[in-house]
Amino acid sequence: MEDSARVLIDCEDAKGLVYKISKVFFDRELNIESNREFVEPENGRFFMRTVISGEFEAKSLEEELKAILPAGANTRVILPRRKKIVILATKESHALGDILIRHADGELDADIEAVVSNHDTLERLVRRFDIPFFHISAESMNREEHERLVIDILRGIDFDYMVLAKYMRILTPNFVSHFSGKIINIHHSFLPAFIGANPYKQAYDRGVKIIGATAHFVTNDLDEGPIIAQDVIPVNHRFDWRDMQRAGKDVEKIVLSRALSLVINDRVFVNGNKTIVF
Amino acid sequence: MEDSARVLIDCEDAKGLVYKISKVFFDRELNIESNREFVEPENGRFFMRTVISGEFEAKSLEEELKAILPAGANTRVILPRRKKIVILATKESHALGDILIRHADGELDADIEAVVSNHDTLERLVRRFDIPFFHISAESMNREEHERLVIDILRGIDFDYMVLAKYMRILTPNFVSHFSGKIINIHHSFLPAFIGANPYKQAYDRGVKIIGATAHFVTNDLDEGPIIAQDVIPVNHRFDWRDMQRAGKDVEKIVLSRALSLVINDRVFVNGNKTIVF
Amino acid sequence: MEDSARVLIDCEDAKGLVYKISKVFFDRELNIESNREFVEPENGRFFMRTVISGEFEAKSLEEELKAILPAGANTRVILPRRKKIVILATKESHALGDILIRHADGELDADIEAVVSNHDTLERLVRRFDIPFFHISAESMNREEHERLVIDILRGIDFDYMVLAKYMRILTPNFVSHFSGKIINIHHSFLPAFIGANPYKQAYDRGVKIIGATAHFVTNDLDEGPIIAQDVIPVNHRFDWRDMQRAGKDVEKIVLSRALSLVINDRVFVNGNKTIVF
Amino acid sequence: MEDSARVLIDCEDAKGLVYKISKVFFDRELNIESNREFVEPENGRFFMRTVISGEFEAKSLEEELKAILPAGANTRVILPRRKKIVILATKESHALGDILIRHADGELDADIEAVVSNHDTLERLVRRFDIPFFHISAESMNREEHERLVIDILRGIDFDYMVLAKYMRILTPNFVSHFSGKIINIHHSFLPAFIGANPYKQAYDRGVKIIGATAHFVTNDLDEGPIIAQDVIPVNHRFDWRDMQRAGKDVEKIVLSRALSLVINDRVFVNGNKTIVF
Repeated sequence: MEDSARVLIDCEDAKGLVYKISKVFFDRELNIESNREFVEPENGRFFMRTVISGEFEAKSLEEELKAILPAGANTRVILPRRKKIVILATKESHALGDILIRHADGELDADIEAVVSNHDTLERLVRRFDIPFFHISAESMNREEHERLVIDILRGIDFDYMVLAKYMRILTPNFVSHFSGKIINIHHSFLPAFIGANPYKQAYDRGVKIIGATAHFVTNDLDEGPIIAQDVIPVNHRFDWRDMQRAGKDVEKIVLSRALSLVINDRVFVNGNKTIVF
Repeated sequence: MEDSARVLIDCEDAKGLVYKISKVFFDRELNIESNREFVEPENGRFFMRTVISGEFEAKSLEEELKAILPAGANTRVILPRRKKIVILATKESHALGDILIRHADGELDADIEAVVSNHDTLERLVRRFDIPFFHISAESMNREEHERLVIDILRGIDFDYMVLAKYMRILTPNFVSHFSGKIINIHHSFLPAFIGANPYKQAYDRGVKIIGATAHFVTNDLDEGPIIAQDVIPVNHRFDWRDMQRAGKDVEKIVLSRALSLVINDRVFVNGNKTIVF
Repeated sequence: MEDSARVLIDCEDAKGLVYKISKVFFDRELNIESNREFVEPENGRFFMRTVISGEFEAKSLEEELKAILPAGANTRVILPRRKKIVILATKESHALGDILIRHADGELDADIEAVVSNHDTLERLVRRFDIPFFHISAESMNREEHERLVIDILRGIDFDYMVLAKYMRILTPNFVSHFSGKIINIHHSFLPAFIGANPYKQAYDRGVKIIGATAHFVTNDLDEGPIIAQDVIPVNHRFDWRDMQRAGKDVEKIVLSRALSLVINDRVFVNGNKTIVF
Repeated sequence: MEDSARVLIDCEDAKGLVYKISKVFFDRELNIESNREFVEPENGRFFMRTVISGEFEAKSLEEELKAILPAGANTRVILPRRKKIVILATKESHALGDILIRHADGELDADIEAVVSNHDTLERLVRRFDIPFFHISAESMNREEHERLVIDILRGIDFDYMVLAKYMRILTPNFVSHFSGKIINIHHSFLPAFIGANPYKQAYDRGVKIIGATAHFVTNDLDEGPIIAQDVIPVNHRFDWRDMQRAGKDVEKIVLSRALSLVINDRVFVNGNKTIVF
């Protein structure tokens, strides 16, 4: 018997959904600690996140909910437990370091199972926190060969989410499909957008006045998957491109950590190529 | 018979509230267009805002809801209609002007019934928009006498909310009690806080790096009532106090208009000295 | 004889520039009220904005400065006077209205000489402020014909800057070249960028979490000229595309007015495709 | 002979200062890499920060500048070198951790000489980074006795700035006077301000919509010294006070690190109880 859970439902909208779902909780004498719903007007999809307390058996609750919901509904009864994450990084330490410190601080409701990198630059930092570090060099091999080695390592690790903390390699559709819906990435964002090498240099040349960061799920079919969180900071003409890069690092680490916290608290639904963040 | 409404409920929390309320809608075959709930953990109060559609009779729906809710519940079935507002101002035009423009633009889902001022400075601006302007000078009279004249004017006007758009007079508890829960005010905010004359000069002398604004309901028992919206903008040492004041005007008008829009869309509940903004 | 001016200099950087320029002021017993310099590291260009006071003759001061500066230097001694602006708009009133209110408020250090529009939608609003309104319909004529009519109107008006306050027509290079360096535009900005019709709908479909605005000079050779000001506001999944558009209007009007204020106070230098904002 | 320096001057304003100072650089054939000046209109004080390059002898340059400046001028010729800092902390790791990570990353142009704490909670984290940690318990001693022990430790360490990274003890005027102008502190800021125990609980009870942080120099005569940097983040009614605290930690660490970076790059002048940040 369990005593609390997060219940996550998404399904096509139908009359009486809130009534039917809350009836299940009511009949079982469960408390609703908090509850949020949203119906996406564009595709008529219903999303609900409810925190319940009281005595219940998870499997049977999930089945009862499924029975009253439209066909094809996603129903998850998530019991309280720390999530497990792995982090992929390359050479830059700002995003990784911020997660390590939050983890050491007990702020993150998740355990870092491993850090995997295509360089050994960050090994010393990661080992300071007694976290396993795997260096998988990509030297003298093609993308597929390298990814196969990374997948081999990751297969031996039990994890809920993979965080790309400035992992500077392009992932193949094959890699992404192995970890579908589990990969969170951070990238710089600019108005206007700059594509290609050294975007900070391009942004500098263009004289932008703000620099942003976007955290998103990684998907196959698009360069950028559903956006989880975004933010910006102001810059000005006295910032050279290295100053802009430094400012960009600050906003990147804050946005990535914010997105990670939302995801591990089961607050993010994906709806096509966008997110509902409760 | 009506075909849509915003249903606003606040009451003490109890098991099964969402179930019982959604059952009422379900039994009446009403659609839930959107729905938000919140239980304040501190005082265990339940808040719910539901937009419904379908055929119903407002009075009977309200009564049926009251019958299933705990004693003392506030239940409002608000039918679609433009709200009516009056604006009190003094000499500064930024907050008033922003509301006038939004109104002229059709952006504001409300009608401006009148502008009342203790000076005639803004008369010309208000008349440009064909809105009644009442100049009630406070010269050679005490606070109570002046308020009595203002109340006399306001009594002749039907309105839902009174907006203090930089109305620079202190209101007596008597005045506030006449329009309890209906008065929205904007004031500058600083970190740290500055009390007394010319806060911008004080903020300048203190070298603050941000300037803010707070929109709130006006209550009797406190200098500041429940906060509806807040925002800030960055400043620096090159801002003299007039520059700071100009920056302050920008953030004031945006925050007041945002708060007004939330209130006239029935998105704001008051819970003691704080708000729930759905 | 004059008693104060803004002196604006831009030229290629050289050793001793600050010394030589300040020597001119010193020898003439002029006070430096404020002074800002910047050397762009990329192209080695020097920018300086100095506010001076004291007795001087503008023409002779300008010539003396030119004599000590590198060949090709731009030297402007700008005497205190209100700038003159014209505004081009189409149907949306938020950006235009914000400028009208600031103007009526005396906040803008500029006079609005005229508003020109390809529709008559905004005529009533503009006339409320006793400002000349010219309706130049574009119906049944090509772009060049319409622009010729607009240019004819503008030729009769003396102005320093042209503000495109949501003027929804694409300008030809010919039009832009008539008013080179004088045209300020505002446009929405998104992360990522959306091109084509109804960008707010696209942003909504993509689930963005922030919406921005960019004010820039209009140039011939690029879709977007030098950026003067940018800002953003947060949105979330509960914003439908109309809510996003409304949020976008707020940030657009604030950013355009901020840019206009910087420009009419002679605080903006253009350096290639970027700006220096003092 | 040196080849580059930051020259920092503050003195009472006088005619010809820029001319006289730039003449010194010009006569010595020094390049001005960047230059910023500001005259505080309130007290007529002149501030200047110039980065120079070329061959020079620091002592002689400083003396020549002093000779041409008004009596009482502060003139500093600061040669390029890494600054040294000590950090005082208590139990919370967010602000300390952020500095440790930036230091490990090489982003901070300073060395951390030691961390001193009145608890041993943070010892493990600090030792991960191979930085000396001093635990000076305050148990069973009065404030003066404890501070004497801390001062004894600090006397043995050569440092430029002391960072209070959530050091939760009130400093006596005696302690502050030992390290005058060298102590940087971070504290939470709210609109309105909350004084006393658990400000986050107070802010929650008040329903604030934004939470801020202020980094400032610590002075004797005031609760809060000159402000170096400030920022805020938005919160809402769904944040309980622990969520607000977590949000507060994010803004605190970013603001403290920003302030520290400004200070170690010699960009901050103090003018009475405010700062000039170049």
